[in-house]
Amino acid sequence: MRGIVPQKVKGFRDINSTQNALREFIIEKASEIYRRFGFSRFDSPILEYAECLGKYLPDNDSVAQGVYSFKNPEQEPVYDTLGKEMRDSANNVIMENHYLAMRYDLTAPLARVYAEGLWQQHLRGEIQGKTNLFRRFQYGPVFRFEAKLDPGRFREFWQMDFDTVGTEDVATDAENCMILSQALENIGLKRGTYLIKINNRKIVNGLLAFIGISNADDETAVMRVIDKLDKVGIENLAKELGKGRVDETSGAQIPGLGLEEKNIDLIINYIKDFEIHLTRKETLEKLKGKPSFENQIYKEGVQELEKIDEILTNLGFNEEVAIFDPSMVRGLGYYTGPIYEVESLQTYTDEKGRQRKVGSICGGGRYDGLVENLLGIKVPATGASIGIDRLAELLTLTGQAPKQISGPVIVIVFDEKLMPLYQKTAMQLRNAGINTEIYYGAKRGLKHQMSYADKNNCPLAIIIGEDEAQKGVATVKNLKLGKLLSQQISDKNEWKSKVQTEISLENLAQEVKKLLFE
Amino acid sequence: MRGIVPQKVKGFRDINSTQNALREFIIEKASEIYRRFGFSRFDSPILEYAECLGKYLPDNDSVAQGVYSFKNPEQEPVYDTLGKEMRDSANNVIMENHYLAMRYDLTAPLARVYAEGLWQQHLRGEIQGKTNLFRRFQYGPVFRFEAKLDPGRFREFWQMDFDTVGTEDVATDAENCMILSQALENIGLKRGTYLIKINNRKIVNGLLAFIGISNADDETAVMRVIDKLDKVGIENLAKELGKGRVDETSGAQIPGLGLEEKNIDLIINYIKDFEIHLTRKETLEKLKGKPSFENQIYKEGVQELEKIDEILTNLGFNEEVAIFDPSMVRGLGYYTGPIYEVESLQTYTDEKGRQRKVGSICGGGRYDGLVENLLGIKVPATGASIGIDRLAELLTLTGQAPKQISGPVIVIVFDEKLMPLYQKTAMQLRNAGINTEIYYGAKRGLKHQMSYADKNNCPLAIIIGEDEAQKGVATVKNLKLGKLLSQQISDKNEWKSKVQTEISLENLAQEVKKLLFE
Repeated sequence: MRGIVPQKVKGFRDINSTQNALREFIIEKASEIYRRFGFSRFDSPILEYAECLGKYLPDNDSVAQGVYSFKNPEQEPVYDTLGKEMRDSANNVIMENHYLAMRYDLTAPLARVYAEGLWQQHLRGEIQGKTNLFRRFQYGPVFRFEAKLDPGRFREFWQMDFDTVGTEDVATDAENCMILSQALENIGLKRGTYLIKINNRKIVNGLLAFIGISNADDETAVMRVIDKLDKVGIENLAKELGKGRVDETSGAQIPGLGLEEKNIDLIINYIKDFEIHLTRKETLEKLKGKPSFENQIYKEGVQELEKIDEILTNLGFNEEVAIFDPSMVRGLGYYTGPIYEVESLQTYTDEKGRQRKVGSICGGGRYDGLVENLLGIKVPATGASIGIDRLAELLTLTGQAPKQISGPVIVIVFDEKLMPLYQKTAMQLRNAGINTEIYYGAKRGLKHQMSYADKNNCPLAIIIGEDEAQKGVATVKNLKLGKLLSQQISDKNEWKSKVQTEISLENLAQEVKKLLFE
Repeated sequence: MRGIVPQKVKGFRDINSTQNALREFIIEKASEIYRRFGFSRFDSPILEYAECLGKYLPDNDSVAQGVYSFKNPEQEPVYDTLGKEMRDSANNVIMENHYLAMRYDLTAPLARVYAEGLWQQHLRGEIQGKTNLFRRFQYGPVFRFEAKLDPGRFREFWQMDFDTVGTEDVATDAENCMILSQALENIGLKRGTYLIKINNRKIVNGLLAFIGISNADDETAVMRVIDKLDKVGIENLAKELGKGRVDETSGAQIPGLGLEEKNIDLIINYIKDFEIHLTRKETLEKLKGKPSFENQIYKEGVQELEKIDEILTNLGFNEEVAIFDPSMVRGLGYYTGPIYEVESLQTYTDEKGRQRKVGSICGGGRYDGLVENLLGIKVPATGASIGIDRLAELLTLTGQAPKQISGPVIVIVFDEKLMPLYQKTAMQLRNAGINTEIYYGAKRGLKHQMSYADKNNCPLAIIIGEDEAQKGVATVKNLKLGKLLSQQISDKNEWKSKVQTEISLENLAQEVKKLLFE
């Protein structure tokens, strides 16, 4: 007979108090910087109409792949391109269960938010010229159904985005990089332990235009191959641009894009040109020194990087913080201009003793076409995102996470009859602002209570037996100190005398506060 | 041709910065109290296997109704009741796309968390007797597909739960009520503006046992009818217990449960008995004065309420905070013991000038069978929940929400050529801890910039033209003061002299700080 196994959905996870504290810490510190630059918090729902989110995920050609999507339980009208309800031959409104999708990032929903705000005006033909500025930050879970799930990766993870919609000024792109830098440093990363790599999609598009690739789908296809550089290496990359290759580990046939040999060489040489470390100025010079495929889009791309360099330099964000990396392209389909990615340079030792890096912890860029796809009007926009969970992983693996927060003081249930006294005592401590738990577990043995206290990181235990109750005192056991001293003091009585104190119930809150905070 | 309308999914909403600040405020203040009682934060995913969540929603008989549920894109094994993979006649593991569900509350997932933790031990037959204590709090969105959506209600809303799993001691139920009271008061509600109503499912189950109803489904059916008391009134309630009724507004036929007349009378009389205001002690006396249907379960229920009363009285939570309400049953199917609901007593005036109440803002109770349904082992548990969004609505409607937070200082883009100076100035302010935005919008007219500043609640505007730049000063316009004085001062020059100041760029951060915080 069929049964139920209580388990998390595969690829999902529970988050314990330590992990939550770390998420909260990152969110608090990054929010501070996002607000410092004038952003305010905004939230959109977890669910959206699938068609409003569009199809921008890397490695997936349809919204159904990579996205948790399902039919809305209720039927709603189908609309035409003018926003009018469509009708069948009998003049009945055509109804349908539209597809809903759990958001796969926080950028696509933002485009919906902005487009929705202008929709009625748009239908009335009232939008002339430029549209309003909208800046917001948002954090929370996003959902991706990755068919093959790498170890340590999850299908629900947290991101923290800030975006500016309604400006084409690339000064905002420079600002995005400064925000990422300041947010990471506010979280505790030292300068030099992370590196912002900046590029411009226009430069790569210019290069592709030179070899005759200029439609968006083909551009995206090449970008996605180039995006694999770090994963597969330059030789395999060349094969994927050409005739395809066989994957070494899985033996799977990976189809190629079928580019001509000379065009593949051109792309590969371009990538190799920037493999060596160059300053931002040197990179700009080298980019400008490629007149062979200089076209309008390419030139614009280089000019924008020049402007970004000027601003960063002017404000003290030097080469240690941000470099230009012309071979960095990012996988998402919606980028149109400057793009950036933050790489952690710190290494940690994994369980097999290997030196490893967490890799990319932030990313972003300009997506001038995303709102247009919904609204039919060009609305420039740009933003970036901190991968909260990836950053949390980095902080944990490199020992940079804030110390574990202390659990509550625990009132031990030593004698059931004294429960009212325990409750009064706990209330007295709580009223003094001390986090206090009465042990209410079903297993009431003292040993079990102590192990519960230990597991929950309780700093102190309050023990009141009949004797203590009659004397009006409590035995306070310093669990934290006890753990520490148990390694230094072997004599049990000596240890006890240092770790346990008798305190009058009257002064208990005051004395406990001293033990906790002094 | 079919088009895309950019819009939120029906029943969902975006949350602006003011609403987010209010949610954050509630979460911060309630977290403080939850931690004060020893709870720590824990998070479970948004998605769960539908079968792990079970079917407990009111007014819905299947998980598909009321819940957003869909098939997992990947196939996984089907398990038998012993947790083993099931196989077909050819000995292949039977695979299936299991149903996933978006969580409809935070309690059902907690049961999964706890059961999952014990599952392997359970399979090995290692669980003997009582199980461990687990306490956690959790907040976030939950999702309900309500076919008929009342105005002002949403299909995604936030809850904030705390729960204790692994104890049958009803002292924890008393504690739950104290936590709700302290959390609400920490959020700013005055004592006397809310009321905790406490009952015990065992008492109602005892009553139902007396009239021959003792299976869980029938009990739940009667509870759900009684739960409608406030909505439909006692006469309609009697009809729904009997032959059913026709809804006055919709004309819909509402089927009845078909109870016998004398049993309906008994239930109705029981409800009427407690319509008048009674103290907790008086209610207990009246409950004990009903020997006609006293049975074991009823007696237990009353004894538990007595214990809860003792604890609440002992710790100063008097009748103003909490009463007993034997006709309050709550709609959810999983409650087994003490239950509680917090009602806001405050009225507000709606848009039609009517006096209204928000109603129930918190709820909770004991659910000793929820983990058992997954694990096959009885694990007592209890908890409660604050309806964050409902409470936020209450605070807003009654003017108790904290003041709107201030937007950033805005640096006006007066002259494109001076952009590097604006960027340096903004950086100077930010380095001094002042939230500062450079206006990067595409519409660059001064009027437009000022209206943007107004919309975003900016307290000050920094204006630097060529003259100011040469003199090394900035004109600082106090927008907040300006708004205030515009109602008092009609002379434009006088207004300007009070609202605008010239400040040297060197001292700008220092002076701006004074203007903001003094």
